[in-house]
Amino acid sequence: MIPAKDIDALRALARSEKSVLGPDSDLSSYETGARHDKGKAALVLRPASTEEASDFLAACGARGLAVIPQSGNTGVVSGSTPDGSGTQVVFSLERMKPVFELNLRNRSVRVGAGMRLSELNARLEEHGLFFPIDLSADPMIGGMIATNTGGGRFLRYGDVRSNTLGLTVVLADGDGTVLDLAQGLRKNNTGVDWKQVFIGTVGSFGIVTEAVLNLELLPQQTAAALLVPASDDAVFDVLHALERALGSQLSAFEGMSGNAIRHALAHAPGLRNPFANGAVPETAILVEATRTWAPRDGELAIEELLETCLADIWEGPRAPLSDALTGRPEEIWALRHALSEGVKHAGHLFAFDLAFERGTLMDFLAYMRTALPAEFPDLEICDFGHYGDGGVHFNLSHPGGPPADLTAYEARLRDWVIAVALEKFNGSFSAEHGVGRKNQAYYSRYTPDAVKRLAGALKAATSPAQIGAAEFH
Amino acid sequence: MIPAKDIDALRALARSEKSVLGPDSDLSSYETGARHDKGKAALVLRPASTEEASDFLAACGARGLAVIPQSGNTGVVSGSTPDGSGTQVVFSLERMKPVFELNLRNRSVRVGAGMRLSELNARLEEHGLFFPIDLSADPMIGGMIATNTGGGRFLRYGDVRSNTLGLTVVLADGDGTVLDLAQGLRKNNTGVDWKQVFIGTVGSFGIVTEAVLNLELLPQQTAAALLVPASDDAVFDVLHALERALGSQLSAFEGMSGNAIRHALAHAPGLRNPFANGAVPETAILVEATRTWAPRDGELAIEELLETCLADIWEGPRAPLSDALTGRPEEIWALRHALSEGVKHAGHLFAFDLAFERGTLMDFLAYMRTALPAEFPDLEICDFGHYGDGGVHFNLSHPGGPPADLTAYEARLRDWVIAVALEKFNGSFSAEHGVGRKNQAYYSRYTPDAVKRLAGALKAATSPAQIGAAEFH
Repeated sequence: MIPAKDIDALRALARSEKSVLGPDSDLSSYETGARHDKGKAALVLRPASTEEASDFLAACGARGLAVIPQSGNTGVVSGSTPDGSGTQVVFSLERMKPVFELNLRNRSVRVGAGMRLSELNARLEEHGLFFPIDLSADPMIGGMIATNTGGGRFLRYGDVRSNTLGLTVVLADGDGTVLDLAQGLRKNNTGVDWKQVFIGTVGSFGIVTEAVLNLELLPQQTAAALLVPASDDAVFDVLHALERALGSQLSAFEGMSGNAIRHALAHAPGLRNPFANGAVPETAILVEATRTWAPRDGELAIEELLETCLADIWEGPRAPLSDALTGRPEEIWALRHALSEGVKHAGHLFAFDLAFERGTLMDFLAYMRTALPAEFPDLEICDFGHYGDGGVHFNLSHPGGPPADLTAYEARLRDWVIAVALEKFNGSFSAEHGVGRKNQAYYSRYTPDAVKRLAGALKAATSPAQIGAAEFH
Repeated sequence: MIPAKDIDALRALARSEKSVLGPDSDLSSYETGARHDKGKAALVLRPASTEEASDFLAACGARGLAVIPQSGNTGVVSGSTPDGSGTQVVFSLERMKPVFELNLRNRSVRVGAGMRLSELNARLEEHGLFFPIDLSADPMIGGMIATNTGGGRFLRYGDVRSNTLGLTVVLADGDGTVLDLAQGLRKNNTGVDWKQVFIGTVGSFGIVTEAVLNLELLPQQTAAALLVPASDDAVFDVLHALERALGSQLSAFEGMSGNAIRHALAHAPGLRNPFANGAVPETAILVEATRTWAPRDGELAIEELLETCLADIWEGPRAPLSDALTGRPEEIWALRHALSEGVKHAGHLFAFDLAFERGTLMDFLAYMRTALPAEFPDLEICDFGHYGDGGVHFNLSHPGGPPADLTAYEARLRDWVIAVALEKFNGSFSAEHGVGRKNQAYYSRYTPDAVKRLAGALKAATSPAQIGAAEFH
């Protein structure tokens, strides 16, 4: 769907045959997203260095080719796949991974944007270090930066933004300008912190090819528990009590709806029902405590510490807990990690990635338990997520498969859920997946004109060529 | 120095007589910076609300008046005082402080930019919370955001940027456009995170009038020690050992040069010399451990924990410590906090606020101990700072007062020190004070053209009127 001479010109710039996959190749893995989206790529570019990326991007700009940056392609908002037009060039970062420069004294590493999170952490393990973003999926670093992922240990380590020390970025400005923002400094206030512009903006302002990342010490001790809160209100009493009692030894506070748990138990092989008499509660909380040091004399073992804290909470004012189950951390996390796959079996899934102020999240969920059945009686709420930081994967499932009028139904559902989240509960329509075709309409609807105008000017200054699945102006 | 009709027009917009201080008032406190700078203000505007700030800024833009935002005015780079021309309007945030909205469940507070750090923390104390940026000075929140301060507990809590959840900003765009970026969400990836543009950029892109800040739990237990490292190299061995042994119970790792300590001991009344036989070492390190919980059974007291860790380090490989002194935390911090005032008595002071990758900082200091005397034999190095995150207040004192040829001497000195820091050691010329008239030349010299061009476009899009002491294009 793009002229052969354009393809030839890109091939002439390629440093390797592997750098360009033409329309004659099988491109389907680059065209298919993680959830219900399938587009058509005109071509796939796969540069292996910043210089090659720069040449490709300059050429695409000069030839008016629309570019969609893609790395691990694990997102759920259609932010990294081409649309159905067949005119968009997928710019894959998967070969951008030879760079791996570890700086132990700075506790940092410089990596290519195409490195998988799992590979990065495997290579860091022998040094007792890790990149502390914990996700169920296995994305590449480039996509993690493009969406500013948070994940399951956000409340302990923060998001990708707060763990990014530097970036190398290629602009889609016709010249393929390379911005070297890749100093590994922790403190540097000499003007605009330009790297911030490229974090969480799905590649629309430029493509990240390398990053300098903060590393953390691998935990040496871990304990976990499953809690059943006595009420929605009790969730925050428990969180506050744990934050005070454990300090930053508290490393996860994850919420799970009873529905999500039931689907996981039904579909994950070997997963044990941990609840008393097998009775799945309406809401359960996974709590994790970790320490960077090995057990030492004169100190409560971490399991004892967590049990002591939970006993204090149990006996404390307002009795916030109905149950508290301790167990092997791997087993407790196995339930949490089975939710994402489990809910896919619940029927046709509509996924929302919402965030609220921490105190508001439970109010939103309580409201939805009443309001949703009135509007959409067929749907089941299968939410789970990061209650400790206000994030929730608000999954709604339509049992038995998609509704007959899927497109209209989905549009009406998305409009309604996001209106409730934003207008009634002052929330965000994208906690950690960024903006893609699936939620573009909500950016357009809910972003103030002054902000859109600024984004348009920023786009014109950085990457005026067509790049990225989202439009921010 | 500005037309009377302009002053009259601004007075007509004022909500109170206190909002405009004319040239007939004593403006000296607004004209004088913390270190050796004295300018001349045409007028001082002191709005008490975002609306009044917006009206003032619009009017200044329409009348072509240059505006210098100022809050606590505690910085050292001439970033918040007017130049000597007498044509600049000081835009003081000191009356922007009625707002104080605490959200306990979100662990956040919305405050006016004119609130002092000390007042904020005094008001938070009864709730067991604090804004975790620890500084020797007592700035206002607006200035802390404008410079992205780090301070003495950066390695535990991060900088202002990582503790800012939202901002309200007034643009100098002729209309006084108000950007409401003040949601208190911890996760929100719905486009450019615009608040980042206004953090660390000294007001040049817009004036912050309100902020939503992350709060942390006040420590309930604190222990501290003074360490004497056996060598420069040993500093990082000790840091790494403490990071592993204490995890994020490690809350400060501050370096102090022997010269800075000697001046503090000579000039701070009642300060005790803690070192064996009073022998001040070449370098000492202040280490602090804190916990958010009260002492509990079955757990080492924090003093014992710190002593145990230090004993392990003492006996460990490479014997990195020559001495380790524990004591009351207040007493140990008293030495650290006396340095800033102490070095002012050392002679005429040239202050540099530098940052490096953590591992490089000690290399820079070692280099300077040899290279500086060869270039500037009169100067004494009185550095101290935040070794745990690579930041150093690299103070150089000229004993007995300023050199005869002060202006030329200072220019030559600054050029040389900053060239060494940036060109040889890949550092930053401003760790936590931002850019002002005093270091503008280094922004201009060391910033790549592509970045300056972007900054110019961003300035044109946000605040094209004359605002801020720095020029980033």
